[in-house]
Amino acid sequence: MSFGTVAILGPGLIGGSLALALAERGLADKLVIYARSARALDAIHTAGVDAELTDNPSEAVRDADVVVLCVPIETMPKLVNEFRDALKPTALVTDVGSVKGSVDRDLAPLLEGRALWIGSHPMAGSEQTGFSAARADLFEGAAVIVTPSRQTPKTVVTQMEDFWTKLGARVRTLSPVDHDIAVGAISHLPHLVAAALVNHTSGLDILELAGGGFRDTTRIASGSPELWTEILSANAPVMVIHIEKLIRNLQNAKEALENPEKPLSKSFLQTILQTAQQRRSEMAETNPLFKKR
Amino acid sequence: MSFGTVAILGPGLIGGSLALALAERGLADKLVIYARSARALDAIHTAGVDAELTDNPSEAVRDADVVVLCVPIETMPKLVNEFRDALKPTALVTDVGSVKGSVDRDLAPLLEGRALWIGSHPMAGSEQTGFSAARADLFEGAAVIVTPSRQTPKTVVTQMEDFWTKLGARVRTLSPVDHDIAVGAISHLPHLVAAALVNHTSGLDILELAGGGFRDTTRIASGSPELWTEILSANAPVMVIHIEKLIRNLQNAKEALENPEKPLSKSFLQTILQTAQQRRSEMAETNPLFKKR
Repeated sequence: MSFGTVAILGPGLIGGSLALALAERGLADKLVIYARSARALDAIHTAGVDAELTDNPSEAVRDADVVVLCVPIETMPKLVNEFRDALKPTALVTDVGSVKGSVDRDLAPLLEGRALWIGSHPMAGSEQTGFSAARADLFEGAAVIVTPSRQTPKTVVTQMEDFWTKLGARVRTLSPVDHDIAVGAISHLPHLVAAALVNHTSGLDILELAGGGFRDTTRIASGSPELWTEILSANAPVMVIHIEKLIRNLQNAKEALENPEKPLSKSFLQTILQTAQQRRSEMAETNPLFKKR
Repeated sequence: MSFGTVAILGPGLIGGSLALALAERGLADKLVIYARSARALDAIHTAGVDAELTDNPSEAVRDADVVVLCVPIETMPKLVNEFRDALKPTALVTDVGSVKGSVDRDLAPLLEGRALWIGSHPMAGSEQTGFSAARADLFEGAAVIVTPSRQTPKTVVTQMEDFWTKLGARVRTLSPVDHDIAVGAISHLPHLVAAALVNHTSGLDILELAGGGFRDTTRIASGSPELWTEILSANAPVMVIHIEKLIRNLQNAKEALENPEKPLSKSFLQTILQTAQQRRSEMAETNPLFKKR
């Protein structure tokens, strides 16, 4: 069982891992990889990936049965405009961006009637970036969210689910908006907060005091600032609501700490911590990623 | 070189690890362990720790050259009141609580003229608790903050530094207040925020979607709610200031996201993320705990 010719546009961490995973599992008859820069293509050539390499997006997609956009969200519309005339009408086009509402709004009209379109979000990032960080097993056990809109035919959803499942991922479908709310809560907000916690320590001479707790809580703050500025900006309307809600909750905790004489203050704090502990242990039980290190 | 007779009051994660570490390194002529409950003492007996076990605090400290309080912060004053008449005047008394200002305010007057007092904070906790989680190597490479007040004699500081250094820790001295500000920023605030981030997801059916980033950012939210309510409450005045500052920073990020048309919004966001990334990579270079997993 093969997906035919698969075109990967943008061989960074996700695109590169996708190429390695498809090759290792024998899931593509042919791999075509597009990158803008000759240097990126050289790195893939040197790594010995069995793929056709090109810096021409139309050439990359011409024979493709599956096209996966692995470029920064902001550059997607321009790239799709460049290659869309070359697409086969039966081609399945997806992306791997971390925000889905804005991507769907931008790309669906460009691809309508020219190919089959549906968004994907493999939750398999890392604070590392680039092809050098790519791994054939990146998607194994990872969650991938497939994001059909109301216009997406069922067969397209099934095809897309099948693609990621065969790569070892646990697939879930959500509408683009529901995706952005959920991922805003479990990925984008934690990222912003991790950065805020690191910056919070500036001016304190305590670099060498931070322990394993601080290390882990802020690990994702090592992610690419450019990539994450783009993600937060693309999900801005949802993020504003998330940040407001988090601020309200922090404000409540602050008020409890300010009024220790109030009989409920301490039990309020304890409830916050207890609820969190319980919910997190549920996560640890149901989510395989909480077990693997 | 030995510290003579060492009394450990409260054999939980820290106290238990201390007993194991002192035994392994041959740093005590005699170990005395006090616990309130017979069950706790049984567990230590079963583990084969070579120590005198007692549920009588005065008996525990009677011959002690070093007394280490490893009980919850809130119970320390009562316990010290119980045993202080039995202390040798040359005994060095310390605690391992996570908050130092309130502990110093509570215990210094009780011990004045009866023994030598100075606070300690081994930054070597874990989301696990209890003697069953104790490890002889818990303090190796860990940071321990020793917190002399203006009244503490230099010789007492040196003795205390020597104690933790011989257990393999990296020792630093800070005043109790400076400790609470620093540790508030690198431990207590991250803990509260981790809990808030977990609670933020309640109502979202996404338990199985969270990836490694969420897992790590919220790991410490699995800590004991009782213990952490106590820590946050004991450090309340400092925490209120930390929370206010964090809220202001989140508010600024929110405003940038709300006003993408403002020319500086995007660069402001990117600066937040860039500053955090840089500061965290400095931490990773200078702090051995950022390397070990």
